[in-house]
Amino acid sequence: MSTIGKVIRCRAAILWKPGVQFSIEEVEVAPPKAKEVRIKIVATGLCGSEMKMLENETSHYHYPIIMGHEAAGIVESVGEGVSTVKTGDKVITLFLPQCGECASCLNPGDNLCIQIKQEANSNLMSDGTSRFTCKGKPVYHFANTSTFSEYTVIKEISVAKIDAVAPLEKVCLVSCGFSTGYGAAINTAKVTPGSTCAVFGLGGVGLSVIIGCKAAGAARIIGVDINKDKFEKAKEVGATECINPQDFKKPIQEVLFDMTGAGVEFCFEVIGNPETVEAALASCNESHGVCVIVGLLAGVQLNISGWLFLSGRSLKGTVFGGWKSRESASKLVSDYMAKKFNLDPLITHTLNLDKINEAVELMKTGKCIRCILLP
Amino acid sequence: MSTIGKVIRCRAAILWKPGVQFSIEEVEVAPPKAKEVRIKIVATGLCGSEMKMLENETSHYHYPIIMGHEAAGIVESVGEGVSTVKTGDKVITLFLPQCGECASCLNPGDNLCIQIKQEANSNLMSDGTSRFTCKGKPVYHFANTSTFSEYTVIKEISVAKIDAVAPLEKVCLVSCGFSTGYGAAINTAKVTPGSTCAVFGLGGVGLSVIIGCKAAGAARIIGVDINKDKFEKAKEVGATECINPQDFKKPIQEVLFDMTGAGVEFCFEVIGNPETVEAALASCNESHGVCVIVGLLAGVQLNISGWLFLSGRSLKGTVFGGWKSRESASKLVSDYMAKKFNLDPLITHTLNLDKINEAVELMKTGKCIRCILLP
Repeated sequence: MSTIGKVIRCRAAILWKPGVQFSIEEVEVAPPKAKEVRIKIVATGLCGSEMKMLENETSHYHYPIIMGHEAAGIVESVGEGVSTVKTGDKVITLFLPQCGECASCLNPGDNLCIQIKQEANSNLMSDGTSRFTCKGKPVYHFANTSTFSEYTVIKEISVAKIDAVAPLEKVCLVSCGFSTGYGAAINTAKVTPGSTCAVFGLGGVGLSVIIGCKAAGAARIIGVDINKDKFEKAKEVGATECINPQDFKKPIQEVLFDMTGAGVEFCFEVIGNPETVEAALASCNESHGVCVIVGLLAGVQLNISGWLFLSGRSLKGTVFGGWKSRESASKLVSDYMAKKFNLDPLITHTLNLDKINEAVELMKTGKCIRCILLP
Repeated sequence: MSTIGKVIRCRAAILWKPGVQFSIEEVEVAPPKAKEVRIKIVATGLCGSEMKMLENETSHYHYPIIMGHEAAGIVESVGEGVSTVKTGDKVITLFLPQCGECASCLNPGDNLCIQIKQEANSNLMSDGTSRFTCKGKPVYHFANTSTFSEYTVIKEISVAKIDAVAPLEKVCLVSCGFSTGYGAAINTAKVTPGSTCAVFGLGGVGLSVIIGCKAAGAARIIGVDINKDKFEKAKEVGATECINPQDFKKPIQEVLFDMTGAGVEFCFEVIGNPETVEAALASCNESHGVCVIVGLLAGVQLNISGWLFLSGRSLKGTVFGGWKSRESASKLVSDYMAKKFNLDPLITHTLNLDKINEAVELMKTGKCIRCILLP
């Protein structure tokens, strides 16, 4: 019996308030309104940025909330006026929309669609209401996506149609972590052939940066992490060497200068820690080195010596790896299908959505690179 | 009677210790050693970076010292092995050398010649000695140049030969301030045609940034300064409008967002103040805005909200406007002679070197854009 046009009752992981564990609950998911799409989530990653939000009890989100943003699924139904996807299409969810009409979308060098802010500020859909309820209460949306649920409702501009034969439990990484890291190297840093790169933080996004550096032709890719267990995987995806700052008495930037002679040409901070941002910038070539902050720095202050900018270094932010979201997600999935890169090494654990709190523990203890949850 | 090979006795402005005024003294200037050039200084600017050093009593320089670096002059004699300039040539002095052999000099995208550090650390010539004495004591060199003197000795790699008919009392600005600002817009920011720019700080270097933005085809150039007296000159050289942050209740970055809709595409901090650096970065378009720090930030800490880097902004340093010093200084003087830009509006005062302390006062009180000193 078709669910189209009806409320769907299904399971979701709800966060009732900051600082608690997820609760698996039965929720009601309303049908999509105009320009909205209801999606059956097939696979959703637990992303490092969610881990940060869970740790940050000063979070400004509204509660109860259904988090989750890195997902792939199948369109269950579409609201009025939706023209780019239809029931049965395989799709990627996008925390960064692409409306196609704002100044950013119209600028070829830009990807920060103005629509990212609409939901971010309210945790509600465009009409100011939620599509979720639980125990009679409205539940808030998250990051234009809310994928820790069997079903979710998302705006059409936050959905990318992908190849019908793509394996959703892999390509869900294109929805955030992989694209962010890979694009940070290719689009934001514009890594050049033959160059020397360093990547601070070897989680799933850090590994994706390494894959991007390698794809761009970097000659030397130095992985940096205080967890040596991550080195093997980093080398598997392209790191030419890995170092642990705790193995040295001198600051890591001095170690990298010793290793490279004049600093690295491209450095990536994929941790989101103000101290490692300064160290990453200081590790760059004084004159033309580029440091990209990939780690989430929300709500923290950077304290950086003015000396580091006296001689030409650059410090850059990046969002979704600089990709225009809808058009690029579809293309990146096609590139994966064409074996231009491999997502498999990034996925170390796959769990049922019911086990989301176990997945959080695996991420916290560094035992897991990316845990895929199956609703 | 020729002075070649002999010690020259002449006048120079000496700073005997930090925190005092300059003293005009008779000094002895030794002949140039191998790969060195002795120059009769014809005109030397008093640069904002020297003003900063005079204010900063924690300066790490050695004393007594002959400061000054922004100058033009005539070669008096050359040491052994000098091949690129000869007695009588008109030249520009260069705080940034171009040895032509180091990794930076060999990299087309780089200009930070490794030789800048040799003298900077010791305030002495390559052989570990000074070419200046005063009252029987050695006097230290400054910034590879020491131009507050009738004669100075500089390494060949810090001298650029220029057009024989160039007016030295104008083109001395190519030695530092003009090239730094103009190049920050053209080379470092790579200002694009039709773009919107803002320039914080409308001194000589800030005006040079405006000239660079205009030359690059910027459609809108907003000058920002707390001294309204600087607005007329800024408009004369290319600013399309000027604003005073003290005229607004809201932070200047919000004012610039109101004026532009989405922030400026290129912003230049030409003050060297940590607070204005953060405001300048915050004034940039969230996704693709580029902020260039042109002001001197030596010895200070930047404190910047991590939010500003979440969405793709860039913060860049620049040195000598990204120009390779020797080859570019000669070319920039030729461009001036071809009337590609005008240096005249930047020069508001011309004084004899004896009046250097008056020049310092004029700069401090903001009454002067650039004061040219004539030894």
